[in-house]
Amino acid sequence: MPQGSTTPLTTPTLVLGNGDRLPQVGMGTWKHTGEKASEAVYNGLKVGYHLIDGACDYGNERECGEGLRRALADGVVRREDVWVVSKLWNTFHARAHVREAVERSLKDWGVDYFDLYYVHFPISLAYVSHEERYPPGWYIDGKSEVKHEAIPFRETWEALEELVDAGLIRHLGVSNMCSALLMDLLKYARIKPSVLQIEIHPYNVQRRAVEYAQAQGLAVTAYSSFGPLGFRVFGGAKALHAQPLFTHPAVRAVAAAHAGASTPQVLLRWAAQRGLAVIPKSDTDAMLRENLAGASGAAGFELSGAEMDAISGLDLGLRFNDPADDFAGCYIFS
Amino acid sequence: MPQGSTTPLTTPTLVLGNGDRLPQVGMGTWKHTGEKASEAVYNGLKVGYHLIDGACDYGNERECGEGLRRALADGVVRREDVWVVSKLWNTFHARAHVREAVERSLKDWGVDYFDLYYVHFPISLAYVSHEERYPPGWYIDGKSEVKHEAIPFRETWEALEELVDAGLIRHLGVSNMCSALLMDLLKYARIKPSVLQIEIHPYNVQRRAVEYAQAQGLAVTAYSSFGPLGFRVFGGAKALHAQPLFTHPAVRAVAAAHAGASTPQVLLRWAAQRGLAVIPKSDTDAMLRENLAGASGAAGFELSGAEMDAISGLDLGLRFNDPADDFAGCYIFS
Repeated sequence: MPQGSTTPLTTPTLVLGNGDRLPQVGMGTWKHTGEKASEAVYNGLKVGYHLIDGACDYGNERECGEGLRRALADGVVRREDVWVVSKLWNTFHARAHVREAVERSLKDWGVDYFDLYYVHFPISLAYVSHEERYPPGWYIDGKSEVKHEAIPFRETWEALEELVDAGLIRHLGVSNMCSALLMDLLKYARIKPSVLQIEIHPYNVQRRAVEYAQAQGLAVTAYSSFGPLGFRVFGGAKALHAQPLFTHPAVRAVAAAHAGASTPQVLLRWAAQRGLAVIPKSDTDAMLRENLAGASGAAGFELSGAEMDAISGLDLGLRFNDPADDFAGCYIFS
Repeated sequence: MPQGSTTPLTTPTLVLGNGDRLPQVGMGTWKHTGEKASEAVYNGLKVGYHLIDGACDYGNERECGEGLRRALADGVVRREDVWVVSKLWNTFHARAHVREAVERSLKDWGVDYFDLYYVHFPISLAYVSHEERYPPGWYIDGKSEVKHEAIPFRETWEALEELVDAGLIRHLGVSNMCSALLMDLLKYARIKPSVLQIEIHPYNVQRRAVEYAQAQGLAVTAYSSFGPLGFRVFGGAKALHAQPLFTHPAVRAVAAAHAGASTPQVLLRWAAQRGLAVIPKSDTDAMLRENLAGASGAAGFELSGAEMDAISGLDLGLRFNDPADDFAGCYIFS
């Protein structure tokens, strides 16, 4: 399909445990702000995205919700055809605060249920009220002090299960969770997580984490499919020193072998062919289409086994989003 | 101190949360069998070791216990001056089986309490009765089938806490546990773990896991201080292909800089200077003394900061003991 077309693309899906179908390609919203956020959501839905990956912490749920509401009002898409996704922030892990966090996010999005709601990190921090600061971020003082609070993960999970019972959430998910903690969760969860969302790109292939989660019946969503790109703005040494993937010779070679394929498309297709869902953020309408077409297969190219292996061979176990790099006591990947 | 001396060496200690002192150098018993096991324990105690690191899974607790009992009978050491250590095997994680596992190990050792009792792995497998097979190993059928059982880690921990209350165990420990799971455990543990035992050597420095556990007040014990050496007998590719550490140029260079220091001693001293406890296995009496002297500092050499860094610089994040390499579904490090 020509990328200039205005016909919505179709999105492949991953079948979840209960038979529901998770759109395999969603749009990421992290770092979209203001009007840009609502525009991106509106245009993404128009282009054919059926999943919007949001989070309290992104600080833009109201703006994203505006784009969604406008699209619903304009008949671009029906509510039941969009997966609206949010994530519980670290400061709301206590049983007493889970519901208020979910309700605040629902209100900001202007919807009455989430299709998928993740625990953003398996890290529980001291509560910050909505009045004091929203989104609360990592620091209790808004500046530099990380204050942990001892809330066992099970408490948070049980509170979320109640919100599934109450109809506020259709599917639960976990994000930034290692296999050992997931293994423990699966032992006590009355309602199992449907999706694991973790950082996956050629520098962080996560073969085992994917293998484990998929074997347990979870769908796996890859975030940061473009590797260091999304983290360069934060100035971290890892992101600045890693060779960008869009211009990496191994990725370029694969793109060059498929007429019309771009390197971002190759990176997304590599993930999708592993059976992963992806949620690229796109800064322009052209990118929205390019990413969706590449990831979904609509761009018309498939990576060969050798090409898949060549890209997987870039693995360095290199993680750009590790809270322990920046926040005291947040050791979830060691 | 000359290594041929027969005077017992002194062992430095690490102070635990309650003020108890964990001997910083213990003797490992994994893969010691039969008479060799009792001899090693007896001779180790004679040489000056004050901690014997055992486990149900090593299949030699009766034999190790014989050596201990003989040493106690001969007045080589007093019970209160030895740390007798064992570990809960994966098949005994259910509340109903924890006590029987501990009591069996106590009986085999011939003692009425353990100074330190670890959960060997955060992996819960289906129960195998003592009559059916002891130690049970990884496979339900004794051959190839790994059968997981859904026992939340908290259930196991609470059962162990009761045995601390009952006086059967003085300190609890966790082994092969990643920081994320440890973080969760610390949130609900009524009795906190005193020690974390993990694989640590220059190819697997574990800077963050150590940093986290020590910051939380746990002592950290390094196992497999000699890296691939202990794993070569199993024929795994990683252990066979990794350059042996005893002959590694970087380790040799440090040993050469300290008259009389051997490379095993350098490896142990590197760990001890990081504030870690070590538990080398020694195949001969000479090695028992050499390892204790090197680790404890009695050999009379200290690594400089630059030497410490040179050895830490060998880090590859290379783990030789990863159950996921061999056993289905045992993903505790991904």
